[in-house]
Amino acid sequence: MSSVPSVSNSITVRLELPGRATAVSELTTAVERSGGLITALDITSARSDRLRVDVTAAARDTGHADDLVEAMRAVDGVEIGKVSDRTFLAHLGGKLKIEPKVPIRNRDDLSLIYTPGVARVCLAIADNPDDARRLTIKRNTVAVVTDGTAVLGLGDIGPLAALPVMEGKAALFKRFADIDAFPICLDTQDTEEIIRTVKAIAPVFAGVNLEDISAPRCFEVEARLREELDIPVFHDDQHGTAIVTLAALRNALRVVDKELSEVRVVMSGAGAAGTAILKLLLRAGARDVVVADIDGVVHRERADIAGGGKEHLAWVAEHTNPEGRSGTLRDALAGADVFIGVSAPNVLQGQDIATMADDAIVFALANPVPEVDPVEAAKHATVVATGRSDFANQINNVLVFPGVFRGLIDAAANRISDNVMLAAAKALSDTVSADERNPAYIVPSVFHPGVAKVVATAVTEAARADVGESAAEQEGSDAPQQAMPV
Amino acid sequence: MSSVPSVSNSITVRLELPGRATAVSELTTAVERSGGLITALDITSARSDRLRVDVTAAARDTGHADDLVEAMRAVDGVEIGKVSDRTFLAHLGGKLKIEPKVPIRNRDDLSLIYTPGVARVCLAIADNPDDARRLTIKRNTVAVVTDGTAVLGLGDIGPLAALPVMEGKAALFKRFADIDAFPICLDTQDTEEIIRTVKAIAPVFAGVNLEDISAPRCFEVEARLREELDIPVFHDDQHGTAIVTLAALRNALRVVDKELSEVRVVMSGAGAAGTAILKLLLRAGARDVVVADIDGVVHRERADIAGGGKEHLAWVAEHTNPEGRSGTLRDALAGADVFIGVSAPNVLQGQDIATMADDAIVFALANPVPEVDPVEAAKHATVVATGRSDFANQINNVLVFPGVFRGLIDAAANRISDNVMLAAAKALSDTVSADERNPAYIVPSVFHPGVAKVVATAVTEAARADVGESAAEQEGSDAPQQAMPV
Repeated sequence: MSSVPSVSNSITVRLELPGRATAVSELTTAVERSGGLITALDITSARSDRLRVDVTAAARDTGHADDLVEAMRAVDGVEIGKVSDRTFLAHLGGKLKIEPKVPIRNRDDLSLIYTPGVARVCLAIADNPDDARRLTIKRNTVAVVTDGTAVLGLGDIGPLAALPVMEGKAALFKRFADIDAFPICLDTQDTEEIIRTVKAIAPVFAGVNLEDISAPRCFEVEARLREELDIPVFHDDQHGTAIVTLAALRNALRVVDKELSEVRVVMSGAGAAGTAILKLLLRAGARDVVVADIDGVVHRERADIAGGGKEHLAWVAEHTNPEGRSGTLRDALAGADVFIGVSAPNVLQGQDIATMADDAIVFALANPVPEVDPVEAAKHATVVATGRSDFANQINNVLVFPGVFRGLIDAAANRISDNVMLAAAKALSDTVSADERNPAYIVPSVFHPGVAKVVATAVTEAARADVGESAAEQEGSDAPQQAMPV
Repeated sequence: MSSVPSVSNSITVRLELPGRATAVSELTTAVERSGGLITALDITSARSDRLRVDVTAAARDTGHADDLVEAMRAVDGVEIGKVSDRTFLAHLGGKLKIEPKVPIRNRDDLSLIYTPGVARVCLAIADNPDDARRLTIKRNTVAVVTDGTAVLGLGDIGPLAALPVMEGKAALFKRFADIDAFPICLDTQDTEEIIRTVKAIAPVFAGVNLEDISAPRCFEVEARLREELDIPVFHDDQHGTAIVTLAALRNALRVVDKELSEVRVVMSGAGAAGTAILKLLLRAGARDVVVADIDGVVHRERADIAGGGKEHLAWVAEHTNPEGRSGTLRDALAGADVFIGVSAPNVLQGQDIATMADDAIVFALANPVPEVDPVEAAKHATVVATGRSDFANQINNVLVFPGVFRGLIDAAANRISDNVMLAAAKALSDTVSADERNPAYIVPSVFHPGVAKVVATAVTEAARADVGESAAEQEGSDAPQQAMPV
């Protein structure tokens, strides 16, 4: 994979230049020749013989950023000052703040929102716990919970090092769905203790977003919390990925004019994301899915599965591969209509994609390096998608989780069902109109206005349908409290 | 205790009045005659024969608010519309919001604060966990933790009903000390599980404020968490109360020109607050303290204490009552210089205060009804303080906890010591200058500007002194990250 300069590897270099006419152009040329991309150049002070300049440049990675600094230093007469890293600057002091929604200007304000006034609100909730959804932050607050064991592609880096990701996620919840989300980074990897802890802190929250918890513990944690809590529990790595993948696949199939129920899908990866995608595909009507893992195609007779002890793979074998295929991922791919990879980098080459059926669809979602080079894949497939932002068709969970939680909260939902997830996927795919849809545009940009709202509306409807009439009655209202009979 | 109309029992009544000239004055007179206090009157629309008016009035309690509505209804021609309760209105949707501190306008912003840029920040923290105090919300975030068992004077109302108080507390943390505080309301009352849960969620926080956890569990929870966590743990009901009480007592003693080491102090109550006050008084130099509980004066020979099994009271007996007094609270009070009550309403009368020494000091802190009517007490004592806002000298924890946590966070403190608490009390009392100090002004108003800052500065210094030079080195800095060598 070639790599291009990225703002996430930007540096700002404060330096002094000699006052000669060509000095600035010598500097910019030096950066560009070293493969850097100058994104800002501010002359912050000038004397007749010297200029002070702040240069911001994007590099490919931190080593490359060092190279850019050296290239600037090599320009005759340049003195390098402070080098700062834009990504680190953006993180200084953390990315979230907690603010009162009510003014606290004087004694009267204090007695309304704190003692003694607050006591009446407490008693109202003690009498009717549902009032907490009107009178407290439970109305709009989601816990973003991790144990730091499977963070991005970084693995088990621990709860403290995971915090920047969880803060970022919380920031996205606010940005895209006006949800107040708070990071909970757990200093334990014990499944039972994770479950116990989330249950213990649940009263404050309207929902739980599990994040970056490694498999197989994530399955148990999610299943148990769903069973034991009365608020929806969503594991974004599983369900967010599954929903956005199904949404993208619906549109890709429309592009090539094929039906989900008739295509053959080959998947690489049977982990958390893979399993969730598989289940949702089956639920959506897929009938011929073949899953391969590191040991090849999953089927009932495979030694490790037939031998027992791999319950999870046995379930996969039971529900997939109707033609009883065996062999390698490559074997399975020949003649397949769709490839979905949620596994490892570079497990396939362009020539493998060439063996697929006409109008093939390739989703190579391993991050940051996909299962197959998307440029190579595009030579043989009609639609290619990845998890990366620097290629067309980025399959990005940010398209899903804000709207899903917005919808669940608006419905005051106690759980999230398969129907809700299918509704979310359908709504998301339908945000791309027939006019817009093409091989390079099967999902909208995360900044496409209104995506979260469309998903939220579909989720709210589906969540209410799940519980029938009772949900409609539970619907929260912002009307002022009629606190006393008149 | 007489009760006056309070904004915390305010109602806003929308009503229609006939257009006659005297209608408005008839209405206001009706409210005032019923003991209500009109705080706002807005005519929202008018026709020749009718006026629509929003009347806001303070009542003594909710029953009295009903009376006010009925009084308004009785005015000839009035039609009552919607009655809303200002306290409930202020709580609608909860009192806190969580906001991103960084803009998320476009793809570049996203790649700085989320993937892929965030990965480098995660790795930096994995390499050097102390960086979390620079690069994450751990820098400035406090957990406000309760199990809902001892909320205000309401008792065990559960975690959900406690949430409005914890939200209020978090709002005060921001208002008075620019601290981001988040409420953690625990769905468990098991001491071990509370400890386990707080330890599990601790990575995100720079400090823990325990709140409204009933005794004796609060002692064990606090002691264990202090031992097992590397961030300061503060139980506001104990330590906040102790600090503000000591600060007020220092000034009260200055008013009457007595020394803490020479006065006889009688306390009523040996619960969480009482014990913490006792310990801090002794630490500050008090030498003659007599504690009474519901069974009378605590002394070593008292049957229930001598018999063993009351470890906590045995400790109190060991460290107080040097003259070996026995009998009742009233017996002990005769001739005492200072009374501090943290117990129950109306355990004393004015005549009991009359038996105290000249220039007596009375702190009757039971809330909302003090140990003795402060009006009666003031007939016989020179300085009287309560926990109420409607009398002079309100002993209010809001004077303490924001500044204490601000100071601890600024020092990147790992613990809170007695020295820190003494320093906080001293700094708080010194915010009242010699010129200002008088029997009705021994503590500043919570809105007195700069109180939290003064307390914070003293706490930071004391916390750094606690750990000597090493603390100075740990001091956080906002200087931009020097992410690469230059």
